[in-house]
Amino acid sequence: MNEKIKWLRNKLLGLNMQGIIITNPVNIRYLTNIDAEGIFVVNRKENIFITDSRYIEHVNATLTLDDGIVVINIKDLTLEDYENFFIFCENVGFEETNLTYAKYKEYMHKFKINNFEETEGIIEKQRMIKEPNEIAYITKACQITDECFDYLKSYVKVGMSEKQVANEIESFFMSHGAENLAFDTIVASGKNSSMPHAVPTDKLIEPGDPITIDMGCKVNGYCSDMTRTVFADFIPPEIKEVYDFVLRNQLHVIDILKEGVNVKNISKMIDNNYQLAGYEVMHSLGHGVGLDIHEYPFFGNKVDFLLKEHMVITDEPGVYIPNKFGVRIEDTLLVNKYSVTPLTKSDKNYVVV
Amino acid sequence: MNEKIKWLRNKLLGLNMQGIIITNPVNIRYLTNIDAEGIFVVNRKENIFITDSRYIEHVNATLTLDDGIVVINIKDLTLEDYENFFIFCENVGFEETNLTYAKYKEYMHKFKINNFEETEGIIEKQRMIKEPNEIAYITKACQITDECFDYLKSYVKVGMSEKQVANEIESFFMSHGAENLAFDTIVASGKNSSMPHAVPTDKLIEPGDPITIDMGCKVNGYCSDMTRTVFADFIPPEIKEVYDFVLRNQLHVIDILKEGVNVKNISKMIDNNYQLAGYEVMHSLGHGVGLDIHEYPFFGNKVDFLLKEHMVITDEPGVYIPNKFGVRIEDTLLVNKYSVTPLTKSDKNYVVV
Repeated sequence: MNEKIKWLRNKLLGLNMQGIIITNPVNIRYLTNIDAEGIFVVNRKENIFITDSRYIEHVNATLTLDDGIVVINIKDLTLEDYENFFIFCENVGFEETNLTYAKYKEYMHKFKINNFEETEGIIEKQRMIKEPNEIAYITKACQITDECFDYLKSYVKVGMSEKQVANEIESFFMSHGAENLAFDTIVASGKNSSMPHAVPTDKLIEPGDPITIDMGCKVNGYCSDMTRTVFADFIPPEIKEVYDFVLRNQLHVIDILKEGVNVKNISKMIDNNYQLAGYEVMHSLGHGVGLDIHEYPFFGNKVDFLLKEHMVITDEPGVYIPNKFGVRIEDTLLVNKYSVTPLTKSDKNYVVV
Repeated sequence: MNEKIKWLRNKLLGLNMQGIIITNPVNIRYLTNIDAEGIFVVNRKENIFITDSRYIEHVNATLTLDDGIVVINIKDLTLEDYENFFIFCENVGFEETNLTYAKYKEYMHKFKINNFEETEGIIEKQRMIKEPNEIAYITKACQITDECFDYLKSYVKVGMSEKQVANEIESFFMSHGAENLAFDTIVASGKNSSMPHAVPTDKLIEPGDPITIDMGCKVNGYCSDMTRTVFADFIPPEIKEVYDFVLRNQLHVIDILKEGVNVKNISKMIDNNYQLAGYEVMHSLGHGVGLDIHEYPFFGNKVDFLLKEHMVITDEPGVYIPNKFGVRIEDTLLVNKYSVTPLTKSDKNYVVV
């Protein structure tokens, strides 16, 4: 049995649960390396992945005997089989933030579960602490992202559309070792940059536009996340002022972060800086990165949360002036004992294209 | 108020519901044209989209006064606001196949809902019948897909990797008017084609390989879906035999389909053909296509379902010989009163690359 499933079994023991049904595909991939539709059932005796004909061959090719996972085709299961999975189990866990209400009811009846219990993100919380191979995948994804930005510095030109740049980013990722995008690329120029989640449009890049590029790719399922705001042709003074403010804050956060730091305090500090400068905070300062592009820990100014070594997080302050422009600068960071290591290393000085 | 929201309000009246919380983003897009994170609340008086700062500007830019939708920033809502949304509402609907168990509990308490009721896919079922503009978008997506296949006939060559072909398909879509992929493209050659849901690998295409290409793109949110199996260099006789069998079945289904046909009977008929020929049925014969790549109706041999005019569906028989090869042929079809119209029209004769 692999280490992660062993960890899970220990965790369940401590929670007095005799089994669990895992439905979040990202958690299933984390625990088993399986990337297919299905559910992962852990009971007293076995670890079982229930899937359908479409995926059986692929799943069996992914697993080795050492994994200790039984793969079952859902069409071979009888009503009795379902009832036997959790027989003599008092408490069975489920993922309440993933399982739909309809499936909750269906599983409770089908598996005849006595006590179907919420598990409060036990696996998501474990996923925060990255193992060396996970850090290696994220590092690789960040390297490809840096290479892409380097390429963009000479590729992006006045007169190109946002969509054209976004497509080029995608092509670059796919032809340089990424397996996928980590999320839909954002390329937002001029006024469009005032929307933190802008979708690339047919708008052409004009002289004086700031261009916010938020991009990331996946390597073996693990994500990178980086944002840079660059300038087309020249740097308008009012945007320069905002850029300097955002960069100052972004760098200050990098300086402060390390194991033991409370992200609540950092978020509050940045909120204060914004207030003093007369800017509005539009989104949180950062989030965890891993198999999900947004995962634990989520930064906020209300909940205490202490960083730990081997977490991977982002630092992404942004300022958005409605209907005018916006600036965001973001890096993916690895948390160490006494510092953080930026895994994305692209230029943060003014880049003029 | 737009026609779709009017329809929904009438539907709720008939169900004795005085409000509904819609959380499925695809249903929200269908009803409102909004493509952003948030929830859509319909109560006695208003239609309200609750979102956050990241999306406010984008959502306001999407909507017109005619839509009759109020946009609210979630951070402006007080506990009292939540309690007032459904005051004097006896029954409030929710989407049980989308809402997670955790959100179900949260909303029931936050909105102080008396009777939180399952709605059994009312919106998904309405989405089956496409309006002219929806059909136009799907048709456009299918045209781009056909153009792509036409291009692939001269592009794909022995010695290319599956990934390279998949990337080229993506680039073609994005540079020919598609806004996105409809799903992760499948390019599966040789042995890999025996897995219905294969992921493109670094495997190089070899002479004698069948290559199954399953691809689709999106236009204004609406999907296309098409599969062709082509041959590298020459056509091995054992694969030709399977190809002929699959194509015969695929064409036979197109001949039979029209309004009023029961998909259960068609599925059973094809299952019979497979059994007689000694092949195993690995996946269902087809599914609806629209804003989701897989949506109602889902084909199966157990549940009666009669097709109606203006539905858009797929017809996609496949045969998979484990560890050897597979063949699948799929078209997107528009259901008419007395026939179906294939919206994907690419060559189904033997294509040798």
